[in-house]
Amino acid sequence: MKIAVIGSGAVGCFYGARLVQCGHEVHFLMRRDLEAVRRNGLRIKSVDGDFYLPQVHAHGDPREIGPVNLVLCALKATAMDAAEALVRPCVGPRTRIIAMINGLGIEEQFAQWFDPWRVFGGMAFVCINRGRPGVVHHYGYGRVAFGHLLDDLPQVEEIARLFADAGLESQVRPSLRQARWEKLMWNIPFSTLTVSAGGVTTQEIIDDAGLNEMARRLIFETGHAGNADGCHIEVETMLRKMMANTATMGGYRPSMLVDYENKLPLEVEAILGEPVRRAHRLNFPVPTIEAQYWLVSFLDKLNRGMIGTRAADEIMDDQ
Amino acid sequence: MKIAVIGSGAVGCFYGARLVQCGHEVHFLMRRDLEAVRRNGLRIKSVDGDFYLPQVHAHGDPREIGPVNLVLCALKATAMDAAEALVRPCVGPRTRIIAMINGLGIEEQFAQWFDPWRVFGGMAFVCINRGRPGVVHHYGYGRVAFGHLLDDLPQVEEIARLFADAGLESQVRPSLRQARWEKLMWNIPFSTLTVSAGGVTTQEIIDDAGLNEMARRLIFETGHAGNADGCHIEVETMLRKMMANTATMGGYRPSMLVDYENKLPLEVEAILGEPVRRAHRLNFPVPTIEAQYWLVSFLDKLNRGMIGTRAADEIMDDQ
Repeated sequence: MKIAVIGSGAVGCFYGARLVQCGHEVHFLMRRDLEAVRRNGLRIKSVDGDFYLPQVHAHGDPREIGPVNLVLCALKATAMDAAEALVRPCVGPRTRIIAMINGLGIEEQFAQWFDPWRVFGGMAFVCINRGRPGVVHHYGYGRVAFGHLLDDLPQVEEIARLFADAGLESQVRPSLRQARWEKLMWNIPFSTLTVSAGGVTTQEIIDDAGLNEMARRLIFETGHAGNADGCHIEVETMLRKMMANTATMGGYRPSMLVDYENKLPLEVEAILGEPVRRAHRLNFPVPTIEAQYWLVSFLDKLNRGMIGTRAADEIMDDQ
Repeated sequence: MKIAVIGSGAVGCFYGARLVQCGHEVHFLMRRDLEAVRRNGLRIKSVDGDFYLPQVHAHGDPREIGPVNLVLCALKATAMDAAEALVRPCVGPRTRIIAMINGLGIEEQFAQWFDPWRVFGGMAFVCINRGRPGVVHHYGYGRVAFGHLLDDLPQVEEIARLFADAGLESQVRPSLRQARWEKLMWNIPFSTLTVSAGGVTTQEIIDDAGLNEMARRLIFETGHAGNADGCHIEVETMLRKMMANTATMGGYRPSMLVDYENKLPLEVEAILGEPVRRAHRLNFPVPTIEAQYWLVSFLDKLNRGMIGTRAADEIMDDQ
């Protein structure tokens, strides 16, 4: 199968490389790592066993790739504006597209550009990051949950089999919408609190009584907003599972915190803005998510020098 | 009248000095400024005219002061644990006590230690800060609103007259509880957001659409929690007034931000914790105030090195 990986960060490189390993023709659209991979190939240092691909189809322009059977779109949510133009040259009459991008409304956006029947969502649960150019570090996990925009189950099963055949744990989700909301039940508390709590890991959130309570509140609001949006999430069960799983993860840094530390744009609209807007449309109150949205949006702008802080010429003792 | 100022920070020094000016015998309990004031007196640099008191009764121990007619207790809320021991030596049979301390439940706490009839609240609206030892800078405003724990209006009027005679704008509040909640309608949004939004002045809160909305939400919840607590606050009117007044204040740093920058303990329990607990007892939801409470409590501890942040040995790409 001819596959295009659009957006070859850690996630795109890791899953793309696994698909190469089991014999698919995979083309990577690369930016940062393009020259290094062309010169030295792609190296995956993985808890499941290191492997090395000396020859990789690495491209700087999607028109070099042309139409494929399957597009794996693993761009950052902050790069969604560029997604259509980057994916378009790879789409032929039967091409299917998997969006492996954080947030809500991602697949709906793709369906504005391409046909809805083509569009899948892939939600990866994986500990991974980029090393030096051409190297990806895989620390653990790797499961991907798949859904289809129209919830066409046989099609989802086909995609899931493709990943299972590459030795990856894959999961078929009958409701894409519910899979998206359930993914947000982790991202909304843990990605965003690591930023608003001053740049700490998930461990500090678990350990501090107040932040732990705030994480629970965020999970609770997210799950119930999802149910208001037509899902059937068992909120209490999921809440206990999210907290228990995260407690075993040690002190690690979600990608939002890594982006914050690198002064990159945060996926704040995908992870917070869109869920808040969806809840508003449903008249479902999500005050704690909204507070996080306001704070993290501002911190993102402040962090990237987009807010001019003024010199204080006076101090008010507001006692 | 013999007056003791317990806690001679900017507020204690400023109001105490004004009472000296109009002829009262004022004794200041000092810590940081004690030696400087004994040597060089007390200097107030004020928009209303500078003045200088070469000889001031400055003490390091309240037992040197002894019983007085009036105690002005201007300690930080974070020093409330020490308040009883510091005030006790100054209390005689007819002594009255004005608590000029941020928060809710302050006067109730004093009433546990002393007789309720003695206890007043003083809420200062003043732009002020400490300069070098023995110097206070007064940039603007100065009004004090007074209430009595038992809402004994003639007594409040007497106290207000004392301040008016010293040339200060003073206000009689028939309900101490309502005056406290209304003060919180400024402190809860503006003191605490300057900290949780990454260390910015009130101007950035006014200017940013999201933080502006969050400030309004905090004011709204505070006002309605006050009404659930038996007040009759015109929430919408107060909200408009708070936002409009703060917009004219320029880029200034509330005392909570100044404390944060100096890595001092924040008045987080007085300004956020106690209102949240009071609202809980009333079964009144204050989710936005609660989120601020969890975040600012944590940031306060993190800022003072009380949270051990762990080295991240792995990065999870939680895409």
